[in-house]
Amino acid sequence: MSAPIYLGVIGVGGVGTAFLNQLARLPNAPKLILLARSSQTLLSPTPSYSPSIPAAEWKTAVETPSLTKSGALTPDEIASYLASAPGRSVLVDNTSDPALASSYPVFLRKGISIVTPNKKGFSSDLSLWKDIFASAAEGKALVYHESTVGAGLPVISTLKDLVATGDEVTRIEGVFSGTLSFLFNTFAPASGGSDAKWSEVVAKAKELGYTEPDPRDDLNGMDVARKLTILARIAGLDVQSPDSFPIESLIPAELASLPSSSDGITQFMTRLPEFDAQMAGIKEGAEKAGKVVRYVGSVDVGKKEVRVGLQQFDKDSAIAGLKGSDNIISFYTRRYGSNPLIVQGAGAGGDVTAMGVTADLIKVLERLS
Amino acid sequence: MSAPIYLGVIGVGGVGTAFLNQLARLPNAPKLILLARSSQTLLSPTPSYSPSIPAAEWKTAVETPSLTKSGALTPDEIASYLASAPGRSVLVDNTSDPALASSYPVFLRKGISIVTPNKKGFSSDLSLWKDIFASAAEGKALVYHESTVGAGLPVISTLKDLVATGDEVTRIEGVFSGTLSFLFNTFAPASGGSDAKWSEVVAKAKELGYTEPDPRDDLNGMDVARKLTILARIAGLDVQSPDSFPIESLIPAELASLPSSSDGITQFMTRLPEFDAQMAGIKEGAEKAGKVVRYVGSVDVGKKEVRVGLQQFDKDSAIAGLKGSDNIISFYTRRYGSNPLIVQGAGAGGDVTAMGVTADLIKVLERLS
Repeated sequence: MSAPIYLGVIGVGGVGTAFLNQLARLPNAPKLILLARSSQTLLSPTPSYSPSIPAAEWKTAVETPSLTKSGALTPDEIASYLASAPGRSVLVDNTSDPALASSYPVFLRKGISIVTPNKKGFSSDLSLWKDIFASAAEGKALVYHESTVGAGLPVISTLKDLVATGDEVTRIEGVFSGTLSFLFNTFAPASGGSDAKWSEVVAKAKELGYTEPDPRDDLNGMDVARKLTILARIAGLDVQSPDSFPIESLIPAELASLPSSSDGITQFMTRLPEFDAQMAGIKEGAEKAGKVVRYVGSVDVGKKEVRVGLQQFDKDSAIAGLKGSDNIISFYTRRYGSNPLIVQGAGAGGDVTAMGVTADLIKVLERLS
Repeated sequence: MSAPIYLGVIGVGGVGTAFLNQLARLPNAPKLILLARSSQTLLSPTPSYSPSIPAAEWKTAVETPSLTKSGALTPDEIASYLASAPGRSVLVDNTSDPALASSYPVFLRKGISIVTPNKKGFSSDLSLWKDIFASAAEGKALVYHESTVGAGLPVISTLKDLVATGDEVTRIEGVFSGTLSFLFNTFAPASGGSDAKWSEVVAKAKELGYTEPDPRDDLNGMDVARKLTILARIAGLDVQSPDSFPIESLIPAELASLPSSSDGITQFMTRLPEFDAQMAGIKEGAEKAGKVVRYVGSVDVGKKEVRVGLQQFDKDSAIAGLKGSDNIISFYTRRYGSNPLIVQGAGAGGDVTAMGVTADLIKVLERLS
């Protein structure tokens, strides 16, 4: 019924693969004309931008003679290619690449809309955030990034709706990392009864694939800080960067300087038990107050304060009762009063992260067509 | 930047008034050209459809000489008026009128989009549901009704995103009535320690304005059944009507035939204590099992079963721990696995219901412009 929309996708990792699966099943899917991975790019041939790449067979599509193969393209080259397509185009960035994210304004000014779970564009310097939204307005392009916080959970959309309809968001609080949720739900369950040592819990999480390859990338709190930066900015705070507010790192100072090499990771895991007594002390301190300790992030909009770190919670609170690697996000607002609006559930994983990307893409397609 | 969009609003009750307040503060608000209450209609004069009605001063706008006054118009007359506006138009129905809801197809076929918290159109006969969405497709018009379930909580949008992105929703469960939430959270709190009688709790809720003028309109479970009907249909079940599945009414059979007059309400409240022992028995039965009783609704998509009624829950479950008059809605899906996606918060009240309406209106404006 409406003009076709053209789609470029970058990244075929866990989220990227899950997204392509969802895309392949989408009715009225846009035409996939670019699929880029680290060193390879598959394109529909110009100037017809046809045939498109079959999303369901993306793995073998590289053998299709009618498609164009290329090495890695620069963001500028990708933007030029998409902008010349015979219709509106959308870029889905399924990477966590900061360089690509810093090029979003180039795409947007050319009228290319962006859908992404990549936090980097929205949580780095405030100037990039402002440039992204100014460029989108200039290029009449759309930007959707639900999966940058809480994966597919309705977090960004809910906060934007609260703000857009004139509610006053006073406070946002929650557990924003699936990894840290799992670590503390296991180390200090509200129901008690765990005597696992901190280092054992970290090792188990690493073994289960719940942490980044280098667990320090979770324990440093930076991922949580980036999510808080995004939420605080949507709520109206001009947060300069994700390190412009206090972040409590769970990496012992003594181990912070170990190299990030695989050897450094091994050393870190080997030496982590030296700090078990310290974490046990934190756990017991909370227990003595009848509470449990959790790693949370919060934004106090009135005080313009963002904080990321350990905090004690009543055992019957929603945060204390979290299960597995679930996230929970509470929005306190004028209209909702003393009981916040709460969103809870899996905040990580390929399928649910991709779900947020696909749902965003559907909304962009609805608005562009 | 784009062509103006024209807006008709029906209803100036609690939700309607709150909506008009939010509309008045909206940047790039559409042109309000019709405002209808029970017996009065205010219109922008034809054929120019100008000036528009100032949303901020809607109460005194009736004295504006340049606006047209009329008595009540029929849905057909309103649809004709809106369809002739010099641009796309949207109807916001802030009533709970079943007759107006049954006319949605007339509006939609004329290309008028609909935004509403009115459950009637989506929870009555399945034929009306089908007619609404077929008419919308025919008229290329949009239908948004977030506030029909859980007020402004992101319930409908979340469920639609799950379905549209190809997740398999297996089960939906929750507390869908703010009134019944308050009644049971007060009557049988998870923390124990309440010896209030059931009839006292109902009387208190009535006094606080938490119930409908006739509390039987809450206690009969019909409002919950309508919400479950809507969710079940979005999840793919062809529910014929909101009484085509079991609904446990909390109105004692002996009092069901009392008239709905104000005299009948008084008689009902006077005789309710006769049944306190029965409700105390239900509460104690749950307590003996270490649980609490709650009034919940559930959809089992696989078994095609919808149920509304009392159920026992573990004291440390999220449903048992609800506070005040909050709603909670859990979505169990293939992608989310054993831990559901949960949305929780105030599910009733003028401001938060209007927020869902305003947020929907913003989405419609974004798609139409």
